[in-house]
Amino acid sequence: MAKNKHINIIGRGNVATHLYKALSDFEVNMINPHTLDGLDRNADVIIISVKDDAISEVSDRIGSTNAIVAHTSGSTSIDVLQMEDRKYGVFYPLQTFSKNIELDYTKIPFFIEGVDIKTECILKEIAGHISNHVYTADSHKRKIIHIASVFSCNFVNHLWGVANEILQEEGLPFSVITPLIEESVRKAEVSGNPYSVQTGPAIRNDINIMSTHLSMLDKYPELQEIYSILSKSIQRTSKSK
Amino acid sequence: MAKNKHINIIGRGNVATHLYKALSDFEVNMINPHTLDGLDRNADVIIISVKDDAISEVSDRIGSTNAIVAHTSGSTSIDVLQMEDRKYGVFYPLQTFSKNIELDYTKIPFFIEGVDIKTECILKEIAGHISNHVYTADSHKRKIIHIASVFSCNFVNHLWGVANEILQEEGLPFSVITPLIEESVRKAEVSGNPYSVQTGPAIRNDINIMSTHLSMLDKYPELQEIYSILSKSIQRTSKSK
Repeated sequence: MAKNKHINIIGRGNVATHLYKALSDFEVNMINPHTLDGLDRNADVIIISVKDDAISEVSDRIGSTNAIVAHTSGSTSIDVLQMEDRKYGVFYPLQTFSKNIELDYTKIPFFIEGVDIKTECILKEIAGHISNHVYTADSHKRKIIHIASVFSCNFVNHLWGVANEILQEEGLPFSVITPLIEESVRKAEVSGNPYSVQTGPAIRNDINIMSTHLSMLDKYPELQEIYSILSKSIQRTSKSK
Repeated sequence: MAKNKHINIIGRGNVATHLYKALSDFEVNMINPHTLDGLDRNADVIIISVKDDAISEVSDRIGSTNAIVAHTSGSTSIDVLQMEDRKYGVFYPLQTFSKNIELDYTKIPFFIEGVDIKTECILKEIAGHISNHVYTADSHKRKIIHIASVFSCNFVNHLWGVANEILQEEGLPFSVITPLIEESVRKAEVSGNPYSVQTGPAIRNDINIMSTHLSMLDKYPELQEIYSILSKSIQRTSKSK
């Protein structure tokens, strides 16, 4: 496997830092996004890993280059990198990165897009050195994946927060429900289709328990609303199966 | 540690089966809930592990006994077991059980309630032989815990199902987002307060992305509703912190 590629990573955030570590088998440099000091415009690949709304401006400042220019954003179109005679693409790792938390990079799915097939192949080859899960995804597909991650991670984390708030009122720590959460994850993953392992009062249509719960949430109209809408959605899903 | 107690478990479902295994250090028998064949009314403890709406009827059929009678339900009051001269309580393991899936019982939180302190102590002692996480919880507290588990597991599983549905439309498997889900669990657990590690467009108040997502969900008014309500809830939570 050819690892003799020279890669420049522009950025200083969580994703840039982790990519820098994950790509350490290559010749790789981290570049300050404000100064672009040391940027090698003859590198094989320049990865722009900055905030979404700064990508376009950094791309402009790179200007003319022989390198493939790629950004790492889930919700930004490939087109912001377009420039005459430039090869460009997207190198998007689907993960929630925290700077000081170690990750198993081999498990992170990468979604790659290239302006042409050759560019796409080179970016996929590089991603393949990091991860065992490399997919091709155009800008539309990436947006869909992003929506899926909002539902399955951002919204889910919020519901865990809600549960924690409810438990705290009774002096109970979040750790009380973490074994249950871990087992739910395991069941959903093993099934490959979470709908098929749905449990709880809504799927059983246990009206007594649901109305008890709603009345116990009397003080929290917002949580009542969430409770009702998600319960209805669970019931509609089970009917349409 | 005294493990010379004699325990009868009435039931044949998932919880009964797992409790039977978990209590194998004791003298323990499984009893058919329909016939009560072999039930020892002089046992130390009789655990009723049947469907919620059958507990009361099984309890009546046990009738007079020297044993502590306990049920294993999260949402059933201790009072359904009440009978003159009887000691009774609740022995509630907070977990989602599947018959053929092995579990680490030591991690399962048990919530114990006794009609008197001595009864409670005996039930807690038995639970302590299974798990390192044994709590006292009256019927109100158990209901609160149940609500928390609906939010953090049942609703969460449904959102994973929604994400899976969205991914399937693009021909992507659920496994694409499982590394992200696992990392979210880890972050929430390490933090002990999921609100403190909230990420995503809503907490960043990224109005552009949220409105793009909503218009992409045009075909799914139900998902638009869930998206809006959970995003609003995330934003209100962050403001009230």
